[in-house]
Amino acid sequence: MDGVLNKDETVVLESLADHILGFDPASISDAALHTAKAGIIDTIGVTLAGLPEACTQILLDTQGIADGPGPCLILGTNQRTSALDATLVNGTASHALDFDDFSDVLGGHQSVPLVPVLFALGEEHGLSGADIINAYVVGFEVEHRFAMAVHPHHYDKGWHPTATLGIFGTVAAAARALKLDREKTSLALAIAASMASGIKANFGTMTKPLHVGHSGRAGLMAVLLAERGFEANPSAMEHHQGFFNVFNGAGNFNPTPLTDAWTGALAIELPTIGIKQFPCCGSTHQAIAAMLNLVQGNNLKSEDVKAIEITTHPRRLRHTNTPHPTSVLQAKFSVQYAVARALLDGAVRLKDFEDGAYAHPDIQKLLAITTAAPFGEANAPDGEIWDAEIAVILNNDKRLVNRVNNMVGRSGDNAMSVSELRDKFSDCAGRILTVDQCDQAFHQMSNLDSLPRLGDLTANLST
Amino acid sequence: MDGVLNKDETVVLESLADHILGFDPASISDAALHTAKAGIIDTIGVTLAGLPEACTQILLDTQGIADGPGPCLILGTNQRTSALDATLVNGTASHALDFDDFSDVLGGHQSVPLVPVLFALGEEHGLSGADIINAYVVGFEVEHRFAMAVHPHHYDKGWHPTATLGIFGTVAAAARALKLDREKTSLALAIAASMASGIKANFGTMTKPLHVGHSGRAGLMAVLLAERGFEANPSAMEHHQGFFNVFNGAGNFNPTPLTDAWTGALAIELPTIGIKQFPCCGSTHQAIAAMLNLVQGNNLKSEDVKAIEITTHPRRLRHTNTPHPTSVLQAKFSVQYAVARALLDGAVRLKDFEDGAYAHPDIQKLLAITTAAPFGEANAPDGEIWDAEIAVILNNDKRLVNRVNNMVGRSGDNAMSVSELRDKFSDCAGRILTVDQCDQAFHQMSNLDSLPRLGDLTANLST
Repeated sequence: MDGVLNKDETVVLESLADHILGFDPASISDAALHTAKAGIIDTIGVTLAGLPEACTQILLDTQGIADGPGPCLILGTNQRTSALDATLVNGTASHALDFDDFSDVLGGHQSVPLVPVLFALGEEHGLSGADIINAYVVGFEVEHRFAMAVHPHHYDKGWHPTATLGIFGTVAAAARALKLDREKTSLALAIAASMASGIKANFGTMTKPLHVGHSGRAGLMAVLLAERGFEANPSAMEHHQGFFNVFNGAGNFNPTPLTDAWTGALAIELPTIGIKQFPCCGSTHQAIAAMLNLVQGNNLKSEDVKAIEITTHPRRLRHTNTPHPTSVLQAKFSVQYAVARALLDGAVRLKDFEDGAYAHPDIQKLLAITTAAPFGEANAPDGEIWDAEIAVILNNDKRLVNRVNNMVGRSGDNAMSVSELRDKFSDCAGRILTVDQCDQAFHQMSNLDSLPRLGDLTANLST
Repeated sequence: MDGVLNKDETVVLESLADHILGFDPASISDAALHTAKAGIIDTIGVTLAGLPEACTQILLDTQGIADGPGPCLILGTNQRTSALDATLVNGTASHALDFDDFSDVLGGHQSVPLVPVLFALGEEHGLSGADIINAYVVGFEVEHRFAMAVHPHHYDKGWHPTATLGIFGTVAAAARALKLDREKTSLALAIAASMASGIKANFGTMTKPLHVGHSGRAGLMAVLLAERGFEANPSAMEHHQGFFNVFNGAGNFNPTPLTDAWTGALAIELPTIGIKQFPCCGSTHQAIAAMLNLVQGNNLKSEDVKAIEITTHPRRLRHTNTPHPTSVLQAKFSVQYAVARALLDGAVRLKDFEDGAYAHPDIQKLLAITTAAPFGEANAPDGEIWDAEIAVILNNDKRLVNRVNNMVGRSGDNAMSVSELRDKFSDCAGRILTVDQCDQAFHQMSNLDSLPRLGDLTANLST
């Protein structure tokens, strides 16, 4: 009998529910549509690549997980189960490699709380590709606005925003997709406020991707329960013992982004989101890109090269200066290996971080002629700490130089091209699917806005 | 690639795992054994009573919940499913009426995070009654020590300890029951640190009991995953972005109770735990008890009474002064109704808080002669704010008075008798089971320490 509902005047979640349900898909610009489809394609690719990872396989090996009936595919298998468990397993797989897209404002990964749940619901309810895209854009907008309401305190304190804020994106996307009414949408968000969880102490372990699967499943459960009349306190945000005060504390939040109308640019149109192009530490990506520019611009072959000089910002080099990697983990944090691989193959792919790839004689030859150093004081970029420069000295003593400025993943005005996105997707999905399936799925998702039923796509994502 | 494991020197969870696994069942005294069995009996009773409640029924009506295969009973039905989903549903049912036992130190309910998961595992793994009792005592000890480590800040801030600390009790009990090793036990606790959730803003709604089911399920999942090799950071408590700092903040916790050896009295032996005897607001229980003393001591009949005077502490009366209840919720918060019912029936039972019971003419007659007032200044207990006094004036003008001092539920030196416990169990379980089943189950649980297999008991808890 302890505790009573304390309903304040401003009901944040009811206001937010209005915006979620009132969102007009016509406001999705061509650029936003392109970014949405790229995010969905990229998420499906990394989810398939994450299927063989231990965190995903252990879930599938646990009694009571994904062994109940249902129409929703565990991506990359022929196993179908409930939307709840498909979201758990696919959500965990999607973040297993930490290779999924990101948002600087969210301080986390925007698509993994959205795509697994929407694919599960899409199959179960016969949704169209356009339904998925609309719900995805709505979900991302909600994540972004939660981040604006609670960061930087929330992030700095140690919450994992992909989970603790992502869960509200999950709820928003699912509530929109299932056409919940205003009251049920706000109650689903309120239930989710009691299920938000995930702390950064577990970063670097399998529990980090589990945060995504677990909170995705919990967010969907909140929606399914609210849909059936489950109750919660719609003031669960602003209540004196609500989400804002309990997770952030007085003075450390601002509810306005959640209640404001959705005018101006959508979150999905901002240059602060991006896609990871290479399956290794983000601090090596600039150097890889510079080497790929040299390879592609000069038709460079590794046998023509007698020395490679890498220069990066000292903050990037500190944890990537690994001239002779002796494990997969070290290889992922070796700028020397990543750059040598980019020269040798003209690409950096998942298989390059499997056992022994770093030990191949051709790579060892290149590592022997590769050096890395930080920018000297005169040349160090001020503020633009993501710069990298590669100098290649050819056998004929010619020196080729390329510099990449301030690339944090592939975002904003430096987005991945369709062909680069396709390369990454094929590399990721190719771990599981046939070449034909990869091609067909990529084509279908590139035209997702005109796909009549999501099930036509997932048929190509099963084995 | 963001985030690395930051392992400090003191590993709280490894130390705690040692205590969990090293606990010697021989240290359970006869009194502790009696309390453990009473707690388990009481929890099974309120779980059965909670089955018809909306929060439980909505869960059972949701696709993907409890519809997968498994050997674990949804108590009070003939439906069996996985241990995970049985824990979710039975856990939610156990707290649906908020009628389950409590601990002042925990600031919450100690048994509901333990009994549902242990019954599910008991059925699945053929555990004995003694196995269940040992794991229950261990789980409660861990909850209690977490509470000592993080209260009062944790409670005051708005976390719901039955969920946010109960989850560690769930993990400890399940890890002990499944005989996990030290490393896996500590990792299961670390996984759970990323799944702890539940805020008080949702008190007074269906989401409060859901906290219990959801965190019980999550705690069991943490154990099942760790058992299969899932990884987490064993320093997830003391890490700079670990449970202590993220949930409580610097200066607001003390890890020592978690690392100290389990010497001295066990948590289960403390007078700070108790059982709720009546299914209405705890602030009416003292007045009910005083009236029952009068009824039983004087063979009192309602037709002999011409006036009832209730006196309680003003803090109790403030939210229970409801002379003419017009809804079930008002009846639960009416000290006048509760006392009148105690006189009329010699008991206060679940059916008294079903639709219309408060409107019965016999009750209305008694309400018309009942008054309630706070203690005057001279007579107000100082500190002992749970006192209540009942004066009954008979038709022959004789005045009978009884006073109950400081009774917060039935705890410590004022524990419920076996016959009172049986009355409550029969009232609760009788909502679902036959009288024979109630009697047999009560008998089996009264001798739980010698029950060979838990399945012999649950056969009597199904329909």
